Amino acid sequence: MQKKEISKAVINRLPRYYRYLGDLLEKDVVRISSKELSERMKVTASQIRQDLNNFGGFGQQGYGYNVEYLHSEIGKILGLDRKYHMIIIGAGNLGQALANYADFDKKGFFVKAIFDINPNLIGSQIRGIEVKSMDELEDYLISNKVDIAAITVPKTKAPGIASDLARLGVKGIWNFAPTDLNLPKDVTVENVHLIDSLMKLSYRLSEKDEE
Amino acid sequence: MQKKEISKAVINRLPRYYRYLGDLLEKDVVRISSKELSERMKVTASQIRQDLNNFGGFGQQGYGYNVEYLHSEIGKILGLDRKYHMIIIGAGNLGQALANYADFDKKGFFVKAIFDINPNLIGSQIRGIEVKSMDELEDYLISNKVDIAAITVPKTKAPGIASDLARLGVKGIWNFAPTDLNLPKDVTVENVHLIDSLMKLSYRLSEKDEE
Repeated sequence: MQKKEISKAVINRLPRYYRYLGDLLEKDVVRISSKELSERMKVTASQIRQDLNNFGGFGQQGYGYNVEYLHSEIGKILGLDRKYHMIIIGAGNLGQALANYADFDKKGFFVKAIFDINPNLIGSQIRGIEVKSMDELEDYLISNKVDIAAITVPKTKAPGIASDLARLGVKGIWNFAPTDLNLPKDVTVENVHLIDSLMKLSYRLSEKDEE
Repeated sequence: MQKKEISKAVINRLPRYYRYLGDLLEKDVVRISSKELSERMKVTASQIRQDLNNFGGFGQQGYGYNVEYLHSEIGKILGLDRKYHMIIIGAGNLGQALANYADFDKKGFFVKAIFDINPNLIGSQIRGIEVKSMDELEDYLISNKVDIAAITVPKTKAPGIASDLARLGVKGIWNFAPTDLNLPKDVTVENVHLIDSLMKLSYRLSEKDEE
């Protein structure tokens, strides 16, 4: 596996391949040609062949791709061949939505605890996951190796909490607060900025209006 | 305003500029040099000058940028100088989280109704917004010009609902279902694929592990 040479553009496309192959697997599809996959994904067949050749090329001439094998190999590349201990900071609607998302479990992302400051929420459970007090966070991080923390708190609170998480050894931050986090380089931050996404949509809508 | 010539990469950066300038406005900052803005945003000053020159360049030598003016001009480019009638399809946790996000109002995105099939939710209100039955959707779309529909239903339901929305004249779809939607070209789809985002995070985490 020659990961280091893979371009960012290819990496950005991999989750989508993984999703499509997972859908095919669910439908008991055993193999698929690059032509068929290309029609489903609205990507050229040559793009698919090129992308997958990055990983040694899983296809066989005249046979196509073995769906299960390709799905599993791409999963390995995406780091899905292991389990992740995940926590959620903020038990508001968004935190609850993430906690309720059973699909994450299936991919190996296990939400083990949720933290909040709201006394009405502390002690309650969401899909069997306990909402703990923020006061317990430090102890929790000392006793548990947490891989990923999802941050769903207001933007004013997010930077401080993220720094604490980084200091206490969390290496993966999934940030939903509408602010950028400046953390040490060994911490990986993936942002989901909903408002940015909505503004891209409004840009494209108003661009079309002008045509 | 010469929108047509602006590259996609610049467009992708605009919401972030808008967000930073909004934060500065909240702090009553009147003007900022490209150097200061660059330090805050971790982007080179020359990148900032280049990006903003696309729109005629709002800066003055030795003065810097007028924060309020630049914020408002970028807002116009992003289509934020008008109001959007938005609805949410799916009143689960994610739909509720979106409905509760008061920041959308401030940017001109007004959620006016939420639709669901769950009889326990229909008739209830979320931040004053009524949850209506999916059976009422068609009539609602006939009587109201809806600009954007956020889809937060399971992936098996999303394509059918999206087609209905498109057929009934909705031109903007904000899709949270983990599936791609194939819609007519005059419909703009912006996807928020949470699981793809999480997989990018796990990829980057496992890549670091190998270093």
